[in-house]
Amino acid sequence: MPLASVTALHQIAGLVQELPKFDKDSAEAARDRQDQLTKPPGALGKLEDLAVFMAGWQRSPRPEIRIAQALVFAGNHGICAQGINPFPQSVTAQMVANFEAGGAAINQLCKANGADLSVIALDLDRPTEDFTQDPAMTESDCLDAVKRGAEAVDDTADILILGEMGIGNSTVAAALSTAIFGGDARDWVGPGTGSDADGIARKIRVVEEGLGRHGNEAPLDKLAALGGREQAAICGAVLASREARLPVILDGYICTAATAPLHAVDPELLAHCLIGHRSSEPGHRRLIDAMGKDPVLDFSMRLGEGTGAALALGILRSALACHNGMATFAEAGVAGA
Amino acid sequence: MPLASVTALHQIAGLVQELPKFDKDSAEAARDRQDQLTKPPGALGKLEDLAVFMAGWQRSPRPEIRIAQALVFAGNHGICAQGINPFPQSVTAQMVANFEAGGAAINQLCKANGADLSVIALDLDRPTEDFTQDPAMTESDCLDAVKRGAEAVDDTADILILGEMGIGNSTVAAALSTAIFGGDARDWVGPGTGSDADGIARKIRVVEEGLGRHGNEAPLDKLAALGGREQAAICGAVLASREARLPVILDGYICTAATAPLHAVDPELLAHCLIGHRSSEPGHRRLIDAMGKDPVLDFSMRLGEGTGAALALGILRSALACHNGMATFAEAGVAGA
Repeated sequence: MPLASVTALHQIAGLVQELPKFDKDSAEAARDRQDQLTKPPGALGKLEDLAVFMAGWQRSPRPEIRIAQALVFAGNHGICAQGINPFPQSVTAQMVANFEAGGAAINQLCKANGADLSVIALDLDRPTEDFTQDPAMTESDCLDAVKRGAEAVDDTADILILGEMGIGNSTVAAALSTAIFGGDARDWVGPGTGSDADGIARKIRVVEEGLGRHGNEAPLDKLAALGGREQAAICGAVLASREARLPVILDGYICTAATAPLHAVDPELLAHCLIGHRSSEPGHRRLIDAMGKDPVLDFSMRLGEGTGAALALGILRSALACHNGMATFAEAGVAGA
Repeated sequence: MPLASVTALHQIAGLVQELPKFDKDSAEAARDRQDQLTKPPGALGKLEDLAVFMAGWQRSPRPEIRIAQALVFAGNHGICAQGINPFPQSVTAQMVANFEAGGAAINQLCKANGADLSVIALDLDRPTEDFTQDPAMTESDCLDAVKRGAEAVDDTADILILGEMGIGNSTVAAALSTAIFGGDARDWVGPGTGSDADGIARKIRVVEEGLGRHGNEAPLDKLAALGGREQAAICGAVLASREARLPVILDGYICTAATAPLHAVDPELLAHCLIGHRSSEPGHRRLIDAMGKDPVLDFSMRLGEGTGAALALGILRSALACHNGMATFAEAGVAGA
């Protein structure tokens, strides 16, 4: 069943069987090529692994990035009523305007690394519910956001960069992470955009209250109950990109946590996703470890917006430039290993 | 005294007083700007630090990279007579031809990250002496190579990327590192382009023999006695770039070790140098720690040629794109911290 036909959240689990898989033959052909290029085998380290990753998902021993799409989803959160963020919710719309005017970090990083940026504001004037009181979204609201995320994906692109913006959403990320991977709320809560010790204590309390109400539901029901529209849209974009065989670069804590419910359904749903960077938000390290992933970069960034993912795109471009542009030992007349 | 007037290696120590220093005012102005940009203060992590570093060296609160020069120096080494490398010395010239034809990793990484590459082959048909028998270079040979390195620097560039190629030069790097920073040779010797256990044992023995002959000399005499022409040229390029106020990105183990004699003269001589990446060659971690530096990237690369430095250039471009292109809170009409 394709995602477009899904009419209930639980049906997403049924997508796994039909999704395209990593193509081992293309990956192996890419690894063979790496071993013939004019360098000691393995000497390009992670750049070689990234080229092989791209080969397997693009089904080509010579993967390319012509079009890189960047999608930033923005949402507002009822949980802000609990005083978990020092900024007013109006900042979400102000930052969306900043994205549209080209003034944010993600604009510069998309330009510098060659990504086409689209910003999708999801009903900013209609925040989700406060999850300490009610489910953040109804199933139908959540599925609508999933589909809006999926529809935003350009399936003619060669790679997708994902990011988010939403005042209060580091609390949402901690709630989703705790709900999916367990442990204490305090293990998953961090300063976000700049909470002090009191703010962090409030975030922990709020996550605990949310977990008390919604912690025993199925993974995709947790997405509806504790997530926000931008989290649901990220899940939709991850699934649609998989259907189109696009590799994805996820950003930091909030973006990665948005995909945690998919991981709980089946880690295979995220096999085509790289983590662009390890955020300095403390929960991100724990989350990446729980998901068995290895981030591309580690630059002590904690901005969101997709900034770490866009930075990682530049590394992937370099990896493929080497993979496709280098001469082999035979071509160059160099005595090989 | 400018480098061009130096007529003896020991005079290089006298350059320190006259070299341009990091401009704290420009750096502080750059940090102030970072704190006004539309993001939580510090949220761009290392990217902010890199922008501030560039500001201090370029004496501008808005540093730029218009021209990035990449210099790769190549040399051959008499120490190869001791069987310390599985490849014949002819591979050095073959790889230089590969650089000139555009087929090497460094060509692709310079193109992908916007650097203008020049390759400078230093008397490949005249290897240095075998340092287990004699000093690798006379003082005059060494100073000549230092000056050739210095003369290659384009002082109209905005940043300099440094790299090297030379069969056998990971043994040279280990010898220089041991001579400058002490410890056992085995702490500094690694597999290089692909030595097995026997090859590594030979490298250790050769380094120990070299240290036995030349280990007690002054730092720049160690450069002559144990180094090669590409190591001396890298030192010259580092000094000339400092005179021209160009920040430098050093590459991996061999490139960094080439500058160890300058560090021993005065760590201030390397204050304008970033380490582009931490190589997987085990001595590099120890060397970076000994020099008190923090590498930009850590990608398990071990190719040399300047590849890690060229990759780091892309990160610097992204750092400056954010620094110069982002709107401030006031400009964007976003409610700030």
